[in-house]
Amino acid sequence: FKFLNLYGKQLALAYPDSEVEGIKDDSVELMVKTKKSYVLAGNEWKKDPTLVKVKDVEVGGNKVVVAAGPCAVESEEQTLTVARAVKRAGASLLRGGAYKPRTSPYSFQGLGEEGLKILRRASEETGLPVVSEILDARDRDAFVKFADMIQIGARNSQNFTLLREAGKMGKPVLLKRGLGNTVEELIQSAEYILMEGNGNVVLCERGIRTFEKSTRFTLDLGGMVAGKLMTHLPFCADPSHPAGKRELVHSLALASVAAGADMILIEVHPKPEVALSDSEQQLTPDSFQLLMERIKALASVLGRSA
Amino acid sequence: FKFLNLYGKQLALAYPDSEVEGIKDDSVELMVKTKKSYVLAGNEWKKDPTLVKVKDVEVGGNKVVVAAGPCAVESEEQTLTVARAVKRAGASLLRGGAYKPRTSPYSFQGLGEEGLKILRRASEETGLPVVSEILDARDRDAFVKFADMIQIGARNSQNFTLLREAGKMGKPVLLKRGLGNTVEELIQSAEYILMEGNGNVVLCERGIRTFEKSTRFTLDLGGMVAGKLMTHLPFCADPSHPAGKRELVHSLALASVAAGADMILIEVHPKPEVALSDSEQQLTPDSFQLLMERIKALASVLGRSA
Amino acid sequence: FKFLNLYGKQLALAYPDSEVEGIKDDSVELMVKTKKSYVLAGNEWKKDPTLVKVKDVEVGGNKVVVAAGPCAVESEEQTLTVARAVKRAGASLLRGGAYKPRTSPYSFQGLGEEGLKILRRASEETGLPVVSEILDARDRDAFVKFADMIQIGARNSQNFTLLREAGKMGKPVLLKRGLGNTVEELIQSAEYILMEGNGNVVLCERGIRTFEKSTRFTLDLGGMVAGKLMTHLPFCADPSHPAGKRELVHSLALASVAAGADMILIEVHPKPEVALSDSEQQLTPDSFQLLMERIKALASVLGRSA
Amino acid sequence: FKFLNLYGKQLALAYPDSEVEGIKDDSVELMVKTKKSYVLAGNEWKKDPTLVKVKDVEVGGNKVVVAAGPCAVESEEQTLTVARAVKRAGASLLRGGAYKPRTSPYSFQGLGEEGLKILRRASEETGLPVVSEILDARDRDAFVKFADMIQIGARNSQNFTLLREAGKMGKPVLLKRGLGNTVEELIQSAEYILMEGNGNVVLCERGIRTFEKSTRFTLDLGGMVAGKLMTHLPFCADPSHPAGKRELVHSLALASVAAGADMILIEVHPKPEVALSDSEQQLTPDSFQLLMERIKALASVLGRSA
Repeated sequence: FKFLNLYGKQLALAYPDSEVEGIKDDSVELMVKTKKSYVLAGNEWKKDPTLVKVKDVEVGGNKVVVAAGPCAVESEEQTLTVARAVKRAGASLLRGGAYKPRTSPYSFQGLGEEGLKILRRASEETGLPVVSEILDARDRDAFVKFADMIQIGARNSQNFTLLREAGKMGKPVLLKRGLGNTVEELIQSAEYILMEGNGNVVLCERGIRTFEKSTRFTLDLGGMVAGKLMTHLPFCADPSHPAGKRELVHSLALASVAAGADMILIEVHPKPEVALSDSEQQLTPDSFQLLMERIKALASVLGRSA
Repeated sequence: FKFLNLYGKQLALAYPDSEVEGIKDDSVELMVKTKKSYVLAGNEWKKDPTLVKVKDVEVGGNKVVVAAGPCAVESEEQTLTVARAVKRAGASLLRGGAYKPRTSPYSFQGLGEEGLKILRRASEETGLPVVSEILDARDRDAFVKFADMIQIGARNSQNFTLLREAGKMGKPVLLKRGLGNTVEELIQSAEYILMEGNGNVVLCERGIRTFEKSTRFTLDLGGMVAGKLMTHLPFCADPSHPAGKRELVHSLALASVAAGADMILIEVHPKPEVALSDSEQQLTPDSFQLLMERIKALASVLGRSA
Repeated sequence: FKFLNLYGKQLALAYPDSEVEGIKDDSVELMVKTKKSYVLAGNEWKKDPTLVKVKDVEVGGNKVVVAAGPCAVESEEQTLTVARAVKRAGASLLRGGAYKPRTSPYSFQGLGEEGLKILRRASEETGLPVVSEILDARDRDAFVKFADMIQIGARNSQNFTLLREAGKMGKPVLLKRGLGNTVEELIQSAEYILMEGNGNVVLCERGIRTFEKSTRFTLDLGGMVAGKLMTHLPFCADPSHPAGKRELVHSLALASVAAGADMILIEVHPKPEVALSDSEQQLTPDSFQLLMERIKALASVLGRSA
Repeated sequence: FKFLNLYGKQLALAYPDSEVEGIKDDSVELMVKTKKSYVLAGNEWKKDPTLVKVKDVEVGGNKVVVAAGPCAVESEEQTLTVARAVKRAGASLLRGGAYKPRTSPYSFQGLGEEGLKILRRASEETGLPVVSEILDARDRDAFVKFADMIQIGARNSQNFTLLREAGKMGKPVLLKRGLGNTVEELIQSAEYILMEGNGNVVLCERGIRTFEKSTRFTLDLGGMVAGKLMTHLPFCADPSHPAGKRELVHSLALASVAAGADMILIEVHPKPEVALSDSEQQLTPDSFQLLMERIKALASVLGRSA
């Protein structure tokens, strides 16, 4: 079994279940049998929704948190331009890719650590905490130094090595659902992070693989809503990737907020048509500003803010 | 080629395309080459959105039309109770199944024509026009007599015989997307109806088959939004069937409205726990009333009514 | 409840289950409670595999039955040419479409009853029984007169009206799996036919909708193998439709035989490149002959013939 | 651009394409423009099928290579028992998991390096080269020392960090298709390995996620056959994982061979019912021996050996 401090509670995890009897430790507040495929991420033992703090931004509370920024950091100028624009429009977090997971090895692979440093500078100027995706556990030091929230991308959603590392880094984690994974598997992946004592995980619905061809992926809001009944962790929705076309992003972002997303991830680029990745789906700063206004209006009738 | 009067225009459809040259008729306003797999349902020749009138209810205009009622008509009392309740809550149409398509032959198959008559009586009392599903072209007379809008269900979405018949019945049609069909195929199915001179078709997203297990089907709002860019026909969303659990219906209904649905289909039963079909997903009248209030509030910030 | 004579047995079907107590009839050999979603098509009450006879051709026995012919009947000459070629190569049945279900209304819709008559003449000359697809219950008389086996296509796999009619026509039925249907649902659809007293049903795996793009549909041989453990009915595999490209047809046909298919459906056209439908996936007569030789060799090492 | 020695040829890879003009080097035999999303793994520049050598075992040649062994190495005795049995039955490679990727953190995670050492000892006794899955790039030294072929599992199929590492390790790689990945994406993942100068890659079809529930995954033999037309790399099929039930494994293994698989992966356990993982789908040694006989007979009529 394993001892753990999570959400301020002293826990003992016993697996297989029979071992729970052998635990003798008065400081343990909860002894968890792991009969189910996930326990820590489930809401049987922890009824209250978890608030994940990214510096001073709280995900999972009343406010719908919007994280916006370029798909990939391409240059300091591009990143600063977007960071200022999304800050002005009301975004709470700056997102941007420094290390890019690309299906083809010939696509732009990102600026790497230099990209993280550019994001840091943009964060210092705008005050927006930074979310960025990690691909390799060996880059942990750069992420600990320059990022405020670690993103695990869809293609690494069941990269258990990386999940464990993210758990140990002590930073909040944005965990994306794999293209071919169920919501239950997403929650099980979160369990790997929580097991390392890191309870600050936001789950992210970003579209799954289906036969439908008019969108890039199928945004599964039903899965997100069902997932919210299974876990205490907050949910983010990413409407940009499943849309694949910028004409669809507004409607899917609003639908995500109406469905109950606690956080929204939007790709914004100063000139989407020349972007080095995901050129088709990034919004212009102007379009993003309009979207923020619509999100705020929507959140208010749902009893939330944005 | 085929001559056609649609949306008040005199058309000539030529297929294969080369035949278009052979058409000599001065009254023809538009000669349509059918190079694409759908033309009449597409929005290249008809830019303005189509308003589908179901008696005095207009689908596709400013108002989000809510159709509510039991999955299956079980008795006059049950149907009247629901009809009064949904009318009071603000629904615009009464939906109810008289002929039920059931995966198993041992499940309740519906009351048949008697069910249609009960719906008619409920309509007369409440003033709500009736939507009901047809399974067999040979039942056309009963539907012409008792129904106001003909529903083609998901399992018959590519039953081209039934589509053609529905086109000839002269009533507005609610056409559901098949479990395994793309949005483009849904629009192609609508083309079969329009080819018969019936332009009053509402397309309905009701969830597709995917690997996700926490919901019954995957509601594809992205497909609906993409579909709205391809056709002039209005779109309905059915959150009840994909949810499969009533706890999910509110969130998915609100998401559908936020995504731009022109019409929403909700299953309501006086006592869902004893319903003869879809017991798990029907709302109580009280829950439906609350949902209507939430839909109205949401519609208002989107510049619509409900 | 319902009385039924099936496979030479006198049955009483009781649903709901409690009614089984009320049946008093000494001639009834088996009283079936319908707790499960299918009973008659299941192999709990009938352990021995069912042999379906199409005239003198037996499907479900030792011989792997090959049905071959054009996707669509286009002319008498085309059909006779193919019929003679596939007969010569060793096919047991002639398949051909007279009524064609087409996604687009502008695609070739088939020759209708004239097509059935052409198939009949080809059958008379070659001695091959005819399999052809029915789309509309109102065409039953033509099918009773001209066809030897009635095909229900994938798009009508849950058209319960047509299933019931096929059950009443007294001819063997080839029932295809719907694009979005599970194997269990396919067996439930067969149950509709068996309930009408027609036990001569062959189930057909023809590919399902998935996200994979290199083939037209995903041939689910795993589903077929699993299905064979659930039912006493024989299984056919159609490698032509999922392949979508003729280069893939041989390999998938051989895989189907190796997986245990009792029947194989192959599209053959004298000049595939000018075919009015499915031009990409039809084999030439020469290629089909080679395939037959390979199928025979394969069947022999599996302890079967072909 | 990048210089590369692959399959005995001196290559220069230019991306973007325009850079190809700038390459001046007389020793370069081929200058590859990377307009397509994969080049090295494609069969435009290399028409002949690639033979991948795992010690003295050749994958991609005339012989169908069977790799068999336990899902997870549980003990030396269990592993040796299986290794001897599969050797006796005619397997060419020993497969076994030392590091196990498990959806749930509470499932058995494997013996780690100790597991690799046990496999090594089993290999020394039986002469069968060892295939085992790597999860973490930081374990490379143990794999270089103890394994003969490195497996990249389905969940890491787009873990580009691990793919690059595998490329650098200088051992043949068995690359599995991700649950939600297309065949084209699988080939693109292989491209990452080839770009590091390692051309010894076997692609593995192991089932994808679909809506079908009677099997664990849907074995996509059509995708494998289509893939063989796109690449010069050999293909393996894994019938054990998609089957999920041992009753289905024989049929799917035979179907894989008939479809043209160059290698087959089979899970075998001395006592499947007490296995610590995949208990439902592992074969007994006796059942595996029977399967080998059937595979050999099948291969012979296909003009191959096994």
